[in-house]
Amino acid sequence: MDLVHLILGRRLPSSAADEVKIGVPAAVPAMGLDALSSAAYGPEAALTMLATVGAAGLGAIGPITVIILLMLVMLYFSYRQTIAAYPTSGGSYTVSKENLGIWPGLLAAAALAIDYVLNVAVGISAGVAALVSAAPSLHKYTMPLCLIILLIITLMNLRGTGEAGLAFAVPTYLFIVSLLTVLATGVIRSITSGGDPHPVVAPPALPPATQALTTWIFLRAFASGCTAMTGVEAIINSVAAFKEPRVRNAHWTLTFIVMLLVLLLGGVAHLAKVYHIGAMDQSRHGYQSTLSQITGAVFGRGAIYYVTIGSVLACLCLSANTSFVGFPRLCRLVAEDGFLPRAFSTIGRRLVYSVGIIFLSLCAGSLLLLFRGITDKLIPLFAVGAFLAFTLSQAGMVVHWHKQSEGGRFGNRFRLCVNGIGALATAVALVIILAAKFLEGAWITVLGFPVLLGVFWLVNRHYVRLARTIKAHGPLNLGNNKPPVVLMPTRGWDRPTGKALRFAFWLSPDVIALHLTNLTGEEAKEEGEKVGREWKENVEQPAEQSGVPVPRFIPVPCPFRLFVKPIMEQIKRAKQEFPGRTIAVVIPALTEKHWWHTLLHRRLGAHLRRALMNHDDHEVVVVEVPWFIEDKPVPV
Amino acid sequence: MDLVHLILGRRLPSSAADEVKIGVPAAVPAMGLDALSSAAYGPEAALTMLATVGAAGLGAIGPITVIILLMLVMLYFSYRQTIAAYPTSGGSYTVSKENLGIWPGLLAAAALAIDYVLNVAVGISAGVAALVSAAPSLHKYTMPLCLIILLIITLMNLRGTGEAGLAFAVPTYLFIVSLLTVLATGVIRSITSGGDPHPVVAPPALPPATQALTTWIFLRAFASGCTAMTGVEAIINSVAAFKEPRVRNAHWTLTFIVMLLVLLLGGVAHLAKVYHIGAMDQSRHGYQSTLSQITGAVFGRGAIYYVTIGSVLACLCLSANTSFVGFPRLCRLVAEDGFLPRAFSTIGRRLVYSVGIIFLSLCAGSLLLLFRGITDKLIPLFAVGAFLAFTLSQAGMVVHWHKQSEGGRFGNRFRLCVNGIGALATAVALVIILAAKFLEGAWITVLGFPVLLGVFWLVNRHYVRLARTIKAHGPLNLGNNKPPVVLMPTRGWDRPTGKALRFAFWLSPDVIALHLTNLTGEEAKEEGEKVGREWKENVEQPAEQSGVPVPRFIPVPCPFRLFVKPIMEQIKRAKQEFPGRTIAVVIPALTEKHWWHTLLHRRLGAHLRRALMNHDDHEVVVVEVPWFIEDKPVPV
Repeated sequence: MDLVHLILGRRLPSSAADEVKIGVPAAVPAMGLDALSSAAYGPEAALTMLATVGAAGLGAIGPITVIILLMLVMLYFSYRQTIAAYPTSGGSYTVSKENLGIWPGLLAAAALAIDYVLNVAVGISAGVAALVSAAPSLHKYTMPLCLIILLIITLMNLRGTGEAGLAFAVPTYLFIVSLLTVLATGVIRSITSGGDPHPVVAPPALPPATQALTTWIFLRAFASGCTAMTGVEAIINSVAAFKEPRVRNAHWTLTFIVMLLVLLLGGVAHLAKVYHIGAMDQSRHGYQSTLSQITGAVFGRGAIYYVTIGSVLACLCLSANTSFVGFPRLCRLVAEDGFLPRAFSTIGRRLVYSVGIIFLSLCAGSLLLLFRGITDKLIPLFAVGAFLAFTLSQAGMVVHWHKQSEGGRFGNRFRLCVNGIGALATAVALVIILAAKFLEGAWITVLGFPVLLGVFWLVNRHYVRLARTIKAHGPLNLGNNKPPVVLMPTRGWDRPTGKALRFAFWLSPDVIALHLTNLTGEEAKEEGEKVGREWKENVEQPAEQSGVPVPRFIPVPCPFRLFVKPIMEQIKRAKQEFPGRTIAVVIPALTEKHWWHTLLHRRLGAHLRRALMNHDDHEVVVVEVPWFIEDKPVPV
Repeated sequence: MDLVHLILGRRLPSSAADEVKIGVPAAVPAMGLDALSSAAYGPEAALTMLATVGAAGLGAIGPITVIILLMLVMLYFSYRQTIAAYPTSGGSYTVSKENLGIWPGLLAAAALAIDYVLNVAVGISAGVAALVSAAPSLHKYTMPLCLIILLIITLMNLRGTGEAGLAFAVPTYLFIVSLLTVLATGVIRSITSGGDPHPVVAPPALPPATQALTTWIFLRAFASGCTAMTGVEAIINSVAAFKEPRVRNAHWTLTFIVMLLVLLLGGVAHLAKVYHIGAMDQSRHGYQSTLSQITGAVFGRGAIYYVTIGSVLACLCLSANTSFVGFPRLCRLVAEDGFLPRAFSTIGRRLVYSVGIIFLSLCAGSLLLLFRGITDKLIPLFAVGAFLAFTLSQAGMVVHWHKQSEGGRFGNRFRLCVNGIGALATAVALVIILAAKFLEGAWITVLGFPVLLGVFWLVNRHYVRLARTIKAHGPLNLGNNKPPVVLMPTRGWDRPTGKALRFAFWLSPDVIALHLTNLTGEEAKEEGEKVGREWKENVEQPAEQSGVPVPRFIPVPCPFRLFVKPIMEQIKRAKQEFPGRTIAVVIPALTEKHWWHTLLHRRLGAHLRRALMNHDDHEVVVVEVPWFIEDKPVPV
């Protein structure tokens, strides 16, 4: 307990849940990290696809980036509208559910959930890739590093990240400032040198082209590059956390983040082109990320290089944190609607949804292990979920505006068009991504959708049935409430039996003591007579004298040394004798005080209780009258 | 369940326990295996000690064997008397306990228990040594072979070995006949050749002497050779199993076994000397046991060789079985006297003491693992226990005869002398064994005695205290038996609550429903009002109309989302309000039907029950009214 306390902090009362609302400066690191850090792996993913076509690939990176930036702007306007329409919770799940129906909503939830998991794996593995670029000797430790970072993030989140504002703000702004400095310097040098700047540290030569640039390769590079757009939905999921004026603050944050992302993506694409920088194979020794090559080319491997790469590493790892905020909240919403186990909506000791956090961590850890922590292998699985969620969310908004525009307001019809175009664009991108990446790994993600929807369906069916069976059909009916019949296993007359008997007399006039015996033949007879005599003297006579109905005494032989079955048979007999009466099995239960006591007793009481509770018999109630094994005898 | 059934056989009724009584021909293999098979490792253990003195050692093996044979004869006469005096159960534990007191008895039990464990380890490892001599390519699999044989013997014994008579008889008699043939042929050749027979397959040359034969080495060799005497006590432990005339049959069996053992030990010692056969290092490749070398020297590596070595292997492994019969019986006796957990005296599905069998198997397996299955390393630990048990048992018999001889009968005084001399001889041997082997491993055995006695003491203290606390001090006292107060946690008005309420009304006029809520502030107030309204309508009004005392309704906030603590506080309050009354906590318990249901529910009922039962509060009784989660709703 003390270790848990040390690692996770003291348990917080529910009343501490009133979140501190945040403004724009704090919101950019808290919600924008995922989106901004995509700049570190999105362009690289596109360049990786273009690696086989050599220098021709650098010509293609321009158009690809332009298309992605256009889509980003479209998404920006679309999301502005969503924020205004759903100022409390405009996540894809809610918007789709409310406008398209529960199953499209759950599809969006499945898509988001898968992408949240992938975001953790991709963020951490890309962060480690950046680290390994700066310190190649760490290359062989890629996997353990990934898992250690995952563990740290998980523990941080189980503590609750409420206090972690500064921990996010510093690396985020450092990332923004240093990367913008590198990109701006590089762009200025490229302009002053007439488009062919001299690199301070020359990037590795591009591999020779092994094939020509085809439309297919172009589309695949585009599909990979689309990963740069993931993370933008984090902002609209968290509008509720903004200070008032909530919508305006959310709008400014969105604007700021999208603007920065446009600058970063454009800058990286431009510099990759003018410095002739391509993607390298992460699984090979000597790997350098695209950002590492660019920074090296512009500033050399000096202080600025290490500050930049350090901030990239920090931001990528922290970007995984976005999932740790979003995933448990999404699971809670789905669980509250009854499509995931209730545990996902249970608030843990630090007021976070601990079950969701642990589940996310396990899933992401499995992915990292499965794909050996290599970003490139994870990328094809990524983005499918995000784009499906984008499309569903915007389609939901189209329906939303359609309903609203029935009054005929022009504004709403314009908004409908904006969301419609957005939905169309992301749908087209989704189709391209699916087509381009299906065989490389996107099929795994696609397979995930029906699996998750199936789980949602099964869980919901269970809860619906449960609610139906426990729902009361009317007020309490005390008519025909017959007293129960008490069955009480006993070893003979002793104090635990006495305690249980005193209790049993309150329950029922019909108490039946069952004396269990393993013995057979002569021995059994002798023991039975002895116990029976004691019972007569110590129980029957006092009961008669007190005017209490005398409890019956039945010897129950256990010829196979199993006592549960004979008791079950006695229950059956009692039911025949007392039809319609509840059977209360009163167990005088010796209760362990120390763990080693369990080695010294057969724990018949505990076994019997478990068997009865699993016996699926509506008419049996289990009563445990505990008798504690004391170090010293106590007076009773 | 079906797999268990297949491996262990169907569960037997207790009435099947009437053992088939056996005669002399069946008793020799069943009880004598352990003693006879000692001939396979006893002489070898002595020769191993003498290996460093080269050929001089072969001169010493003669006197050592003579002393051992003399002690064996002494033990024979001593045990004849014990059998006559204790015709039902003359084990060292019983004899020592009855004549010397409980703690000397327990010391004998500890000594026997340790030797039983060692006998399993030594028997199996020596059997595997014999196998490896015949097939050197198996040498590297020594350890796994040991463990596999242990597993097979364990499973066989869990099935019960009642049916296994033939399985024991065939290899035992094969072992006796083939080994006697080898020894007789060898002795005849040795006589006809004038004391220097020509070996068919020459044994490996003796290593050169590295030191002179000292008294110390002689004593150590004697101590090792004493292991040949272990196993004799198995016969007197099982006298009860003989056909009538019981004592005579037991005497004949003992005579037959001791005679055979004398022949085997004498023969091996003689042939080792005349064929110049020494012990080899078992941990080295190319190892051959002494018996393997002798058989090779007399008959070469033909059919007779393989039959002989095969029967040695079988007998050594089966000799481990003697422990599997004796150890659980010993544990049962000690457990019945309250010095070991009761589980040791519980008869398992096949009427054997399964717990003792499994425990023995685990201990022996650990020893085999610890000592890598090398017989030589186990031997120093062995024999200490057997000789301590011999000494205690015979000392007990001295006291026995002393009591009997108070009438002045001469016969009893003579018997006293026989047992006295036996006790003295085995005591001297014990001191020699301890001195010679202490540093080599016997200290482990010696350390085992106080540990086991400590366990006996702790276990007994617990059972004594328990018996004292549960013993009734008088008849059932129904005066001042106040009805309990019922506390019932509920989520509001539903069918499980209704079922539990109907039950609770039988228990007490004072029923208090506890409505647990995680919510805080406005939400909690709203929910509380709603649930309270439903409660009034559906419970309070019908109760009033039926003239039943209206149950109280108390909302219980759980600010830290833990529900056990608030319920404990309510119990405390109820105790203050109703002093001296039992508190019955009635739990409407949702009960899982499938394992995966546990993932879907928080199982508050099960948690609460566990907490209450571990709460160490004598005044709390736990009542579980189960509500089964049905696939289909049922009418209640």
